[in-house]
Amino acid sequence: MEKIEGGITAAQGFKAAGVHSGVKYRSLDLGVVTSDVPAKSFIGYTSNKVKAAPVQVMMETNPRELQAFVINSGNANALTGKRGIEDVYNMRAHAASALGIDDEELVGVISTGLIGRFLNMPKILYGIDRASKELAYGFEADNDFAEAIMTTDTRKKEVAYRVKLGDGSLITIAGVAKGSGMISPHMKVLHATTLSFISTDAVLSDDFNDKWQQTLDETFNMISVDGDQSTNDMSVLMANGLAGGDTADDDPNFMKALKNVMQDLAYMVVEDGEGVTKVIEVEVRGAPSKEGAASAVKSIIRSPLVKTAIFGSDPNYGRIMMALGNSDCDFKIDDVKLTIVGSGIEVPILECGTPVFEDQRSVDIVRMAMEGDTVKIVVILGDGEHTATGWGCDLSYDYVKINAEYTT
Amino acid sequence: MEKIEGGITAAQGFKAAGVHSGVKYRSLDLGVVTSDVPAKSFIGYTSNKVKAAPVQVMMETNPRELQAFVINSGNANALTGKRGIEDVYNMRAHAASALGIDDEELVGVISTGLIGRFLNMPKILYGIDRASKELAYGFEADNDFAEAIMTTDTRKKEVAYRVKLGDGSLITIAGVAKGSGMISPHMKVLHATTLSFISTDAVLSDDFNDKWQQTLDETFNMISVDGDQSTNDMSVLMANGLAGGDTADDDPNFMKALKNVMQDLAYMVVEDGEGVTKVIEVEVRGAPSKEGAASAVKSIIRSPLVKTAIFGSDPNYGRIMMALGNSDCDFKIDDVKLTIVGSGIEVPILECGTPVFEDQRSVDIVRMAMEGDTVKIVVILGDGEHTATGWGCDLSYDYVKINAEYTT
Repeated sequence: MEKIEGGITAAQGFKAAGVHSGVKYRSLDLGVVTSDVPAKSFIGYTSNKVKAAPVQVMMETNPRELQAFVINSGNANALTGKRGIEDVYNMRAHAASALGIDDEELVGVISTGLIGRFLNMPKILYGIDRASKELAYGFEADNDFAEAIMTTDTRKKEVAYRVKLGDGSLITIAGVAKGSGMISPHMKVLHATTLSFISTDAVLSDDFNDKWQQTLDETFNMISVDGDQSTNDMSVLMANGLAGGDTADDDPNFMKALKNVMQDLAYMVVEDGEGVTKVIEVEVRGAPSKEGAASAVKSIIRSPLVKTAIFGSDPNYGRIMMALGNSDCDFKIDDVKLTIVGSGIEVPILECGTPVFEDQRSVDIVRMAMEGDTVKIVVILGDGEHTATGWGCDLSYDYVKINAEYTT
Repeated sequence: MEKIEGGITAAQGFKAAGVHSGVKYRSLDLGVVTSDVPAKSFIGYTSNKVKAAPVQVMMETNPRELQAFVINSGNANALTGKRGIEDVYNMRAHAASALGIDDEELVGVISTGLIGRFLNMPKILYGIDRASKELAYGFEADNDFAEAIMTTDTRKKEVAYRVKLGDGSLITIAGVAKGSGMISPHMKVLHATTLSFISTDAVLSDDFNDKWQQTLDETFNMISVDGDQSTNDMSVLMANGLAGGDTADDDPNFMKALKNVMQDLAYMVVEDGEGVTKVIEVEVRGAPSKEGAASAVKSIIRSPLVKTAIFGSDPNYGRIMMALGNSDCDFKIDDVKLTIVGSGIEVPILECGTPVFEDQRSVDIVRMAMEGDTVKIVVILGDGEHTATGWGCDLSYDYVKINAEYTT
């Protein structure tokens, strides 16, 4: 398996473009990605009960195949009622026409940005026309697309892997994502939706949805910047099969490469989280169930008291246990082992649920570990066989600044 | 019903004291409250799975009657294993002896403060001796006790109501609480546990626990400063019956006064929340179930994006709906009505799930409402018959500062 340069068009037969439609003041704000042939599609949607208009339309259409996807940033088209839904249908029809695609349902649509405002449709339709003409393969197209879908992000997030499968075929999986980033004054938007698009030229069967869900559960569904799930989250996998060969569903190399792509992108989102100064990685082992392990990880990465302690390199490990205790995971406190890893050192904190040490020097060593750019928390709960790993970020002054400033 | 001066000793037969034991550097850090006769006791405990040693002991003992309660601040006696449990038993035995109470189980014990350190028992036992000698009625005793249980609190929290019951008896309900407050350098502690003690001279039956739970659910269980539940939370009601008369369980005046005491204290905790600049009140109406209504309220008051928007008076109402959509409450977005009340103005935001307006002037009015010291969010979900109200606070730079600073 080889990590290669490039983004969404690295896999065969995918073109992309990113243009400035005018929804945002200055930056690229509309992206289109297409496949030369209809691609099997697998999509994860937000489970927030308040769903943006494009999420509602996509869930209703539930496309098994897609040939194109249109994304605008700057406006989420959420809380926009019937008019919002109509706007999605218009975007879809317009894009299908501009791209020469007969079946409108082969075009996916998503938006990201401010909630509660109607789309400026003349600008959006103009953007679709322009992007349709600029579709191309290659690094420049990758970059424009990755930039066009950004909101508070401070950098583009793309990755590609090339991997040889068991049947000898060489396939590519590429991905691009956007996620909450530190805001800059002319890009002030509010809603740090996570979007990701994965393209591959591998052949996948119609039954890939379970594996897609599993990969989502182990990657994007295990990250948190602030614990607030968006109305617009969407993760899209498009597989056009142009690399040929057998179906890759059960190929371990394919699954590994797919997970790598998703995990790299998910990590990039956290790394660029709003106001982030440190990434927090939490690994829970020895849990009695998979759900319990995931719940324990999420409870820790979402706790504001854990996040602020890590921001301040405050060796306040009691908060980690407090957060663990608020999870849905069953455990006995007397079995718990806690270790903190950072700055190249590994510090045992709790054995059998009680602190290993209490003197000031040891506390200083914990603080030193917490001063790393990445702070890893390892919790061994007992002798259960289930594990989970997740990623979050600290809670800094800049997080408050970014999110307290005026919307418009 | 009359609100009166005073705190925990305002009800007949309750004495209190607060002393400096030396666990904290300078401030009062150990409090004792006693009843002249054994009082029926009703206690709410944290549901965090990681429970401090005193919480474990109290839950195991499950006292139906209490004659005294000992509280230390500065150290939570949590994550302290067997030694922590032994320390609780020693505190209890020592207090029973110092107070001349034959049955140790008539003495309650709780701690609050730093997690993961052992108690300095010589100091604690000295403090218990001293407090036992200083027990008194009156304002000074009230004040000392209220101060001794504080950690990051910036002010004492006490309240008392006198009320005439249906049978003509005049009873008093008094309460004292502590909760997360802005930190000052010499008081740096980490764990903003909520503790509250309610004393009354009313007569209560053994069956009062359900009503006690209900009152807790409508008051302390509806507040949030940061969404992180403590390992040490405890709320204690002691009813010594010295006012005489019939059992007050079913007396509406008693229940109303009790709820007033609890709600006033809960509100004070939020008002003194860490880094708070504004209180957020959320009222959800028209929900299909009581649990749904409460879940909707909690999801909104816990959302970091809602909290930061309110800190910055940012009229970003989409975040309120995002948080609502992440709750366990069922609703149809097309039925939702949202209103924001603040600065003496009431601003309709959404009708039938879509924004009422979109022009800049209206947005400025929303911002004006959000500039109030208290921002009230009213959500009408539909035509369900259930309602819930809860209280939270904004998320400010000071919250980050308080919680990122070094523990010791």
